[in-house]
Amino acid sequence: MLKEVIANKENYQPGLSTDCVIFGFHDNQLKVLLIKTKYSEDWALPGGFVRVDESIDEGAVNVLQRRTGLKGIFLRQFATFGKVNRNPIAFSQKVVNFFGIPKEEALWYQRRFVTIGYYALVDFLQAVPQPEGNSEVVEWIDINSIPSLILDHKEIFDKALETLRMELNLVPVGYNLLPEKFTIPQLQKLYETILGRKLDRRNFLRKITSIGILNKLDEKKSNVAHKAPNLYSFDKERYETVLNNGLHQGW
Amino acid sequence: MLKEVIANKENYQPGLSTDCVIFGFHDNQLKVLLIKTKYSEDWALPGGFVRVDESIDEGAVNVLQRRTGLKGIFLRQFATFGKVNRNPIAFSQKVVNFFGIPKEEALWYQRRFVTIGYYALVDFLQAVPQPEGNSEVVEWIDINSIPSLILDHKEIFDKALETLRMELNLVPVGYNLLPEKFTIPQLQKLYETILGRKLDRRNFLRKITSIGILNKLDEKKSNVAHKAPNLYSFDKERYETVLNNGLHQGW
Repeated sequence: MLKEVIANKENYQPGLSTDCVIFGFHDNQLKVLLIKTKYSEDWALPGGFVRVDESIDEGAVNVLQRRTGLKGIFLRQFATFGKVNRNPIAFSQKVVNFFGIPKEEALWYQRRFVTIGYYALVDFLQAVPQPEGNSEVVEWIDINSIPSLILDHKEIFDKALETLRMELNLVPVGYNLLPEKFTIPQLQKLYETILGRKLDRRNFLRKITSIGILNKLDEKKSNVAHKAPNLYSFDKERYETVLNNGLHQGW
Repeated sequence: MLKEVIANKENYQPGLSTDCVIFGFHDNQLKVLLIKTKYSEDWALPGGFVRVDESIDEGAVNVLQRRTGLKGIFLRQFATFGKVNRNPIAFSQKVVNFFGIPKEEALWYQRRFVTIGYYALVDFLQAVPQPEGNSEVVEWIDINSIPSLILDHKEIFDKALETLRMELNLVPVGYNLLPEKFTIPQLQKLYETILGRKLDRRNFLRKITSIGILNKLDEKKSNVAHKAPNLYSFDKERYETVLNNGLHQGW
């Protein structure tokens, strides 16, 4: 990808990139999509450059689609990262060497880049991680076992997780992360996994039902020995309303 | 300023700017600092470009200092704006004509710019609006009477206000906006002004005192005929703690 971008560099905004923190929930783990390339020992967030004829949001949507095959997924811009030495020249040199990019062409890449961070919550089972070329590995990795990341990607990841945790207080979460039918314990586990701490069962039940976004289904979870828990689904319309207006807040 | 930047364009990140929404509170009005230049009928947010040797945050801090004389003020990055046509070429042409910038030099400015939005809360009485050159007007304008703004500056302003309102639910506000000693009704008025709606007096008192950031002073407001209200100050240490950890939240 980088080689093609550099060959058409006049079609891209200079010194600007996007990086995506793509979260998925599976097996009671919150995971993030990471990439390992051959030019570095470290892993990386999926990212891209911004074409002059696309908005920065469209740039991020394209990264997500290219990397997961998913379309129409909610992406949220959370912060822009612009320290002076966030992409040192030595790093860029390694990358252009790896791709065998000619020296004069490489200059476009060997400059300071500012990157715009986006995060997405996707359905783990529907996303199909897509490597580019045969030298890449794309994997879902548990947020509690993040490997060493290139550049400031750990800072970008941390900020995305911090934002997601903060937003649990403002909007409902779960629509893209849980299967269509789920139990309250599954939903609580999602919240606990994002927050990184246990929640009181009764308090959670009271608070989550008071939001009014859940439909109790006339079904119980099967394959459960006894005391099968009720299944729920999100009331999509009500969910959207709360997503737009925010949870009822203090003042 | 633009002319000097263009003359030293190799010292600046291409296609990147910062815009600052600077809020001040005075006379029970929330105001924003706006600039009127001679090359446009519309007003503008104070902004600047990003030097290659400064971080994006430092770039924004410099704008704030240049425009208000204030140092060490809390600035918060809230969003980056990057629609394809946010700064049409016709607009740039008007600006470079106004400054009499040579055609070949002007090209640097006549390209797509992505801008990073910051907001600041400043002490209205300490800020001294600073025009650059004698063709500029810099003024505090009530947020309820925002004039027509250039480019997407209205969108940037709206997003800043939306962020500020949202953050009232997450962190305490007031430290930079109120005088050192204030009354509860003054603080309530600040919250009401930011939120754009009335709050119940007793609920507000209960909630604001439960945060534990207020020191009740052994003084009453003078020049008040009868029933002089108590004066308060912020417990700076406790205020900082809550600012860092967030107000106690739902989950």
